[in-house]
Amino acid sequence: MNKVTFLGGGSFGTALAILLADKGIDVSIYDINAEVINDINNNRKNDRYIKELNIPERVTGYTDIDLALQGASFVVLAVPSHVIRSVCKSIKGKINKNIIVVSIAKGMEEGTDLRLSEVISQELENPVVVMSGPSHAEEVAIGIPTTIVVSSKDMNSAEKVQDLFMSSNFRVYTNDDLIGVEIGGAVKNIIALAAGVSDGIGLGDNSKAALMTRGIVEISRIGEELGGKAETFFGLTGIGDLIVTCTSMHSRNRRAGILIGKGVPVEEAIKEVGMVVEGVSACRAFYELKEKLNVCMPITDMLYKVLFKGKTPQQGVEELMLREKKSEIH
Amino acid sequence: MNKVTFLGGGSFGTALAILLADKGIDVSIYDINAEVINDINNNRKNDRYIKELNIPERVTGYTDIDLALQGASFVVLAVPSHVIRSVCKSIKGKINKNIIVVSIAKGMEEGTDLRLSEVISQELENPVVVMSGPSHAEEVAIGIPTTIVVSSKDMNSAEKVQDLFMSSNFRVYTNDDLIGVEIGGAVKNIIALAAGVSDGIGLGDNSKAALMTRGIVEISRIGEELGGKAETFFGLTGIGDLIVTCTSMHSRNRRAGILIGKGVPVEEAIKEVGMVVEGVSACRAFYELKEKLNVCMPITDMLYKVLFKGKTPQQGVEELMLREKKSEIH
Repeated sequence: MNKVTFLGGGSFGTALAILLADKGIDVSIYDINAEVINDINNNRKNDRYIKELNIPERVTGYTDIDLALQGASFVVLAVPSHVIRSVCKSIKGKINKNIIVVSIAKGMEEGTDLRLSEVISQELENPVVVMSGPSHAEEVAIGIPTTIVVSSKDMNSAEKVQDLFMSSNFRVYTNDDLIGVEIGGAVKNIIALAAGVSDGIGLGDNSKAALMTRGIVEISRIGEELGGKAETFFGLTGIGDLIVTCTSMHSRNRRAGILIGKGVPVEEAIKEVGMVVEGVSACRAFYELKEKLNVCMPITDMLYKVLFKGKTPQQGVEELMLREKKSEIH
Repeated sequence: MNKVTFLGGGSFGTALAILLADKGIDVSIYDINAEVINDINNNRKNDRYIKELNIPERVTGYTDIDLALQGASFVVLAVPSHVIRSVCKSIKGKINKNIIVVSIAKGMEEGTDLRLSEVISQELENPVVVMSGPSHAEEVAIGIPTTIVVSSKDMNSAEKVQDLFMSSNFRVYTNDDLIGVEIGGAVKNIIALAAGVSDGIGLGDNSKAALMTRGIVEISRIGEELGGKAETFFGLTGIGDLIVTCTSMHSRNRRAGILIGKGVPVEEAIKEVGMVVEGVSACRAFYELKEKLNVCMPITDMLYKVLFKGKTPQQGVEELMLREKKSEIH
């Protein structure tokens, strides 16, 4: 019988844990925060990250990582991108090499420009599967029909993860374009932050649709440069995830962007959202990368200047919207 | 000096008329409805179609089409797709052959499967330019930054229309893929109706993003079959327009879909929206076309059965979401 261990008790990890428990699978959640674990074990709640949900009895919380890992056949890394490496280091030697490691974070490692699956593979010898797609935790947890993609260098492992999570309301597809899946998931957070800024300064649906349309071009431009396939960027982990992130209030990236657009200082906006805003570090990472590779990414460029160089959101978005351009395809 | 005549006093035509008047251009609006024309001329309002706007003095309303056409150097067909042919017939011989005719309707002619520019060219010898893109009238009218595309068999005429409408908040791009621009605009209304149904039956953002992602594939599949270019479907008149139509409450197609999803009978839902719901006739036209051409269009297929064959929205959307499929790219 499978047992699945989640490292990190955040919203998406908890939603997936509930989904698996509802399928009759035993789940452990490890989190460093004792309050979160107490809430799970004693109240069957995780109100800090995902409110108003009942967590099934098959889910057990742990603050001791060794206990949490006992008997696991899958380990899900449910932590933000910037701690993926340290979490992998912390379980090095503690898990059998054939345990499949699943990553649900989105981003690139700052400084190294590595995709998260590459970071994991530097630290662990296990098969690595990434999961990405249009999937707000709040909706997954209550069984709203959701589609998602798994990818891996080792598609056998991806298919095992597909079987593990597949349910009537959670459709898991495979896609062997690992680079495309990871890049799409990381860059869309940048576009979502920018879309939030557009909303925050009071622009409308027309403006945001234009921004998102250009955003997709930007994602596929850098993604293809890095070795991803165009069709992936126009699929669930590209356009699909971009749409859900740019249009839903569930998105932290969008919420942070709205606050920034309204004039709230960046640090304060991030604090107010209360969870990690992946688009901020993604923006820094991809700004450096695009400069190095000489790829045109005007939205990333604009956002970088707003986040880190003191450009006002108004100036940034207006310059972007009013760029001289006469023919759509160029 | 240019003078522009709009045939039809609907929301988008009125918004464009305001935009031109603000640029100092004289505009005539012809409409069959005397109340609408009185409201424009006497109250500087068009409350039936687009509320709470002030219509500038440079805009004059007419119920006499001959008077409206006097001195026009551009004629804008601002009527629903199903009356395009009869409106063209009604101005045959009344306008000089070098006057540029602009079409802002979206759809295909039922029965003939002709694109609207083809319908117009069967009736009139004038150069025809189509305008399409993510552009809710309500936002255009108040100067929210908007991007739009013009296309034509005769790109010189398209460039003249580009110059006519271009302003700092209304960015007009050219694209010479006339087929792609017209097909994208027509099919997206089908997907928007279906997205509304998904919202109406209570599905969430995850489900709708999946539907829209598949919708884009569906648009490009039929569009390429009909001779359009893939890059057009992934641009402003494809994805861009799809996004704005599926996510905004300004969209009549989406609003009609929501009502249908909530169980309101189709005819009643259309009546409640109060304006033409282009997705309904587009669905019928493209259903027939896809059957003839043997193109896979599962969303159009589902919607056709809900609209015309008595399938319940729940059944339709659930069947669509749960189609067996294991690999994303196939």
